[in-house]
Amino acid sequence: MSSLDVAVLVGSLRQGAYTHSIGKALQSIAPSGMTTEIIPIGDLPFYNPDLDEGTPPAPWTRFRQAIAAKQAVIFVTQEYNRSVPAVLKNALDVGSRPYGSSVWGGKPAAIISASPGNISGFGANHHLRQSLVFLDMPTLQQPEVYLAQVNTLIDDAGNLKPDTAKFLGGVLEKFAAFAAKNI
Amino acid sequence: MSSLDVAVLVGSLRQGAYTHSIGKALQSIAPSGMTTEIIPIGDLPFYNPDLDEGTPPAPWTRFRQAIAAKQAVIFVTQEYNRSVPAVLKNALDVGSRPYGSSVWGGKPAAIISASPGNISGFGANHHLRQSLVFLDMPTLQQPEVYLAQVNTLIDDAGNLKPDTAKFLGGVLEKFAAFAAKNI
Amino acid sequence: MSSLDVAVLVGSLRQGAYTHSIGKALQSIAPSGMTTEIIPIGDLPFYNPDLDEGTPPAPWTRFRQAIAAKQAVIFVTQEYNRSVPAVLKNALDVGSRPYGSSVWGGKPAAIISASPGNISGFGANHHLRQSLVFLDMPTLQQPEVYLAQVNTLIDDAGNLKPDTAKFLGGVLEKFAAFAAKNI
Amino acid sequence: MSSLDVAVLVGSLRQGAYTHSIGKALQSIAPSGMTTEIIPIGDLPFYNPDLDEGTPPAPWTRFRQAIAAKQAVIFVTQEYNRSVPAVLKNALDVGSRPYGSSVWGGKPAAIISASPGNISGFGANHHLRQSLVFLDMPTLQQPEVYLAQVNTLIDDAGNLKPDTAKFLGGVLEKFAAFAAKNI
Repeated sequence: MSSLDVAVLVGSLRQGAYTHSIGKALQSIAPSGMTTEIIPIGDLPFYNPDLDEGTPPAPWTRFRQAIAAKQAVIFVTQEYNRSVPAVLKNALDVGSRPYGSSVWGGKPAAIISASPGNISGFGANHHLRQSLVFLDMPTLQQPEVYLAQVNTLIDDAGNLKPDTAKFLGGVLEKFAAFAAKNI
Repeated sequence: MSSLDVAVLVGSLRQGAYTHSIGKALQSIAPSGMTTEIIPIGDLPFYNPDLDEGTPPAPWTRFRQAIAAKQAVIFVTQEYNRSVPAVLKNALDVGSRPYGSSVWGGKPAAIISASPGNISGFGANHHLRQSLVFLDMPTLQQPEVYLAQVNTLIDDAGNLKPDTAKFLGGVLEKFAAFAAKNI
Repeated sequence: MSSLDVAVLVGSLRQGAYTHSIGKALQSIAPSGMTTEIIPIGDLPFYNPDLDEGTPPAPWTRFRQAIAAKQAVIFVTQEYNRSVPAVLKNALDVGSRPYGSSVWGGKPAAIISASPGNISGFGANHHLRQSLVFLDMPTLQQPEVYLAQVNTLIDDAGNLKPDTAKFLGGVLEKFAAFAAKNI
Repeated sequence: MSSLDVAVLVGSLRQGAYTHSIGKALQSIAPSGMTTEIIPIGDLPFYNPDLDEGTPPAPWTRFRQAIAAKQAVIFVTQEYNRSVPAVLKNALDVGSRPYGSSVWGGKPAAIISASPGNISGFGANHHLRQSLVFLDMPTLQQPEVYLAQVNTLIDDAGNLKPDTAKFLGGVLEKFAAFAAKNI
């Protein structure tokens, strides 16, 4: 396989968030040739088109450049109030502007959603997919990744338990193949 | 009619945003007894549960108190990338936590979405509705409010043109009746 | 409490469907004054506006009259392919036409979704909600009802197990109160 | 370009439906190598798993074979009540079962939605997309196709007006390239 540099965006700012543990663990289970790197998004000011007149905020520029340097994106997110956490939606918005300068277009994407309950972040997962249509990001359909009872899937040290590592490893292999076709 | 104090949340931070003009104009067309007030949301740090341990950020507290003092909520929003702007989603998230202390539960809601094109913010409108289910806010179903070509509905001074003022005035009357039943 | 006559629409045509068992069981746990009746939908021809020119199909007329005679609606549904089963969507469509003659407008609604897995029909639940906005049916927000592992909630005779009966009984009480305000 | 045989599914049963005119017109604007054929769906009994025990209904078998013989799918649909028309959802459901025998998996898809008003079938378009995730159909993201005021885009003989023909012709070219990568 040829190489694939993947940006990982995590939906939670909470220290010790499960989604952060998962995001960090992806590198250890990635197929050969795939690198994954969490790109921080907590310091991005809310998107406001006025700030794109003149010199945009430095964190926006840093973020846009970081995404532009990657070939694909994996989102790892919990849901807040049945939808996408604001910090993650803001990253999408910042990267999508100004008009004509989106950093997202054409980059293959995959979504991992998770919750401590049954619903597994389904609401966030599919709201995110609706945005990825507009952003022109070909998105992996299957396997869908809904992690229920996510607190049982990660050990105290923040590592994926074996079954979850194996499942997500398989997802990354499928994503590598999908991305290779769609870049 | 008895009185109804309505918080208005606007989805855009842009100076001169159409949604801001609409939000401001609501008071002038509100039925007797209804007050509307835009509650600012641009200064709220991203929701992070860690910040609710101990003393939460002052803007969160201010915002939570401002919403708690109102009886109902009207959202006026454009869409970004086929979904809710991050700044508005963040306001929902901040107001919904910590667990057991949501300021939203039971407050009747209405949604006005708008776009310069045809789609009228439909994507944001319905993603927002999905969150309002979880937040337990009874939401006005009809009239749905989708403002297409919003730039043609507001004059250069930022005032609603007569047809739009009349239409939205009717919406506010329906909302007042709906809220009166559901508070 | 005054009386409330509720139409129950079930999303599955399968003999012995869990959703059918739940729909049938509602009467036994309904609060005093509430009657529930399953209205059959499996014999409705697909909606086609041409068939509303002249005399519509007899099953359409029967169905429209049956719904018109009720004051409220409860939907009990599994999901097919992450959305509403066609047979249930068709019932909505048939009842909504011809223009100006919808039988749904103003009738309070509640949704019970279920699946044998974790996701609990979340996709069907919220797609249905999007239609209920257009149909002008005030819809119960909380408690949301997502029944995971539904096969474990019903005994071999098709009766609700005690915990589920108690939970759904509480939902019906909330719905009765909500409907009383919104009729 | 190599050849691509595309099934076209139309969401309306109405004689003279705009979506039917569009579906029919696709062949005339398709790029070289692409064939498009409308597969009828109005005669499919509602999906009911019981009917898949033993010999399934003949129209189901015919439909499943017709889809299996194609390499890709284009959906052309209006929306009913802010979601997918039942007749189209039923076709998806019938083709997806019995478990392990879906005819959809891996077939690239594109969606054309339309309405006589502004909203352009946006609700149906994205609800359909949610199902296509489960059905594992890689779906064209851009150009999104939302045809507003569709009655103005087709002439009295049911032909696409030049601008629409040109726009949709471009969409088909993009779809051919997307499908070629994803089959």
